Amino acid sequence: MGRPMFKREDVRTGLWPERVTIMDVGPRDGLQNEPYMLPTEQKIRLISGLVDAGVKCIQVTSFVHPKVVPQMADAAEVVAGLLPRSGICYFALIPNEKGYERALAAGLRHVGLVLSATETMNQKNLNMSVPQSMAIAKRLLQRAKSDGLTVRVDVSVAFVCAYEGVVDPQKVIAQTEELFRFGADQVCLCDTTGRADPGQVAYLFAETRRRHGGERLAGHFHNTYDMAIANTLAAMQQGIAFFDASIAGLGGCPYSPGATGNTPTEDVVYLCRQMGVETGIDLEKLCDISELVRTFSGKLPPSAYYRATRVKQTDGLVTT
Amino acid sequence: MGRPMFKREDVRTGLWPERVTIMDVGPRDGLQNEPYMLPTEQKIRLISGLVDAGVKCIQVTSFVHPKVVPQMADAAEVVAGLLPRSGICYFALIPNEKGYERALAAGLRHVGLVLSATETMNQKNLNMSVPQSMAIAKRLLQRAKSDGLTVRVDVSVAFVCAYEGVVDPQKVIAQTEELFRFGADQVCLCDTTGRADPGQVAYLFAETRRRHGGERLAGHFHNTYDMAIANTLAAMQQGIAFFDASIAGLGGCPYSPGATGNTPTEDVVYLCRQMGVETGIDLEKLCDISELVRTFSGKLPPSAYYRATRVKQTDGLVTT
Repeated sequence: MGRPMFKREDVRTGLWPERVTIMDVGPRDGLQNEPYMLPTEQKIRLISGLVDAGVKCIQVTSFVHPKVVPQMADAAEVVAGLLPRSGICYFALIPNEKGYERALAAGLRHVGLVLSATETMNQKNLNMSVPQSMAIAKRLLQRAKSDGLTVRVDVSVAFVCAYEGVVDPQKVIAQTEELFRFGADQVCLCDTTGRADPGQVAYLFAETRRRHGGERLAGHFHNTYDMAIANTLAAMQQGIAFFDASIAGLGGCPYSPGATGNTPTEDVVYLCRQMGVETGIDLEKLCDISELVRTFSGKLPPSAYYRATRVKQTDGLVTT
Repeated sequence: MGRPMFKREDVRTGLWPERVTIMDVGPRDGLQNEPYMLPTEQKIRLISGLVDAGVKCIQVTSFVHPKVVPQMADAAEVVAGLLPRSGICYFALIPNEKGYERALAAGLRHVGLVLSATETMNQKNLNMSVPQSMAIAKRLLQRAKSDGLTVRVDVSVAFVCAYEGVVDPQKVIAQTEELFRFGADQVCLCDTTGRADPGQVAYLFAETRRRHGGERLAGHFHNTYDMAIANTLAAMQQGIAFFDASIAGLGGCPYSPGATGNTPTEDVVYLCRQMGVETGIDLEKLCDISELVRTFSGKLPPSAYYRATRVKQTDGLVTT
């Protein structure tokens, strides 16, 4: 298939990035939500496969307490097993100071904090109040500055909370502003519940971009309501150029056939490729990694691109 | 969940319709591609259920030769079994003059023709050349005018052809212009292969709207590459306000689990509801019809909204 025969500029409603960075969160956010335990060497193979496919930024693990998330007990071993490669950003999630120290000791240069936009979600997910989480973020951001680490902060349920419903965007705008004032290098607005719509996404990214510039903002969408690609489009139209996605949709709820969680990386790369936006990722090599995920998960990846191009099917009758 | 706390006007990049009409194509385009035969009374039950849910426009059947499409052999019986309801548009596909006469005899007032944007697809699907199809369309449009029927024309593979690749939009623009000159009441640009991207969609609808106005154009998207919602969004941003969709995604290829064809009506209605665009359709009543489809198809509908709200699943661990 060639490129469409018109200028991309003609159809770029709103702002558009020339290039988009995709952080693959499969090895952490994905695997953490899968029912099986993946051996360390398999995790390393997955991560290096992603790098080979052109993924420049990977969330490789999380330095949480092994009792809380047994899947991530091998965090230090995973990091130790990664080849340093120029231009590649290995990134780990850290829940607190202890995690920060472990990540630092493991030699990581990029860490991520997480907190919530709503009080109830923060209590349920992190067992503390939003002000407590903000205080920890402030301290860790100061330490990271002096240690020379880059830090991003994920704001979960930035659009719709499972407990509190639609989140007031003014709250998220204020929280984002505070996090940048504390020294965050990037703030990621996360649609944890998959309930954000393109209108909410456009509004929140337009408002935060106007204040902080597009290059320090990221979007993390879930495909639960099939809105992830439309939300990515809406964010790109606001000039956002950094998105999380998960190889083979890792982390989709395994209990319901076809239910999806994280947006499959393949589909975001496909969207970008079709829109003429550079990602540096080779889609076919990426799908080879989806095959690898399929072998160890035993599940058909929810990625539409993967299914349309790698799963054999008899041609149906086509009329319109 | 309440409405987001900002004005929709603030985020309406491009044009936006206040109200969108959705034509459910499940009873025709959907069932035609399913492997089982649905009894006539079940088809009628399905159609009246859609009307009860607020769907104003339904593609109820196709007057094709029963040998070609046995599923549609009961076309006249289906039409005879429908209650006339004010404000409801029952619509049938007709492949040729013979089909036109059968539809007229059955008492239908709204008919649809189909032809392709590319020569190869037209030969494979309709066994004639594009000029031959255009000549038939011209004759039938003239007859329909004098018979007082409304006619829409579906242009299949308007974006990407399975045989010829990316379609030159100038060809589709010229074809659309000719069809309106012949007297078409509506032209529907169909992404038959599901390979259209939001850039192509924005371009083609912007160009055709500029020439003919948004109110005579319709979009028909497939979700094969998970682009249907983003494509619908892109078309709405160009002021398009008429979309095809299929209840419970009827017509998705049954051979590959999760592979999707027609965009599920539920998901388009959900997008519109979230974006504050009126459809007149009650989403929960619509999902009751999805349940009905599930019972006779024996398949879990591919609609994300249906799965997220009607399928029980254990809550997964949520962090970002």
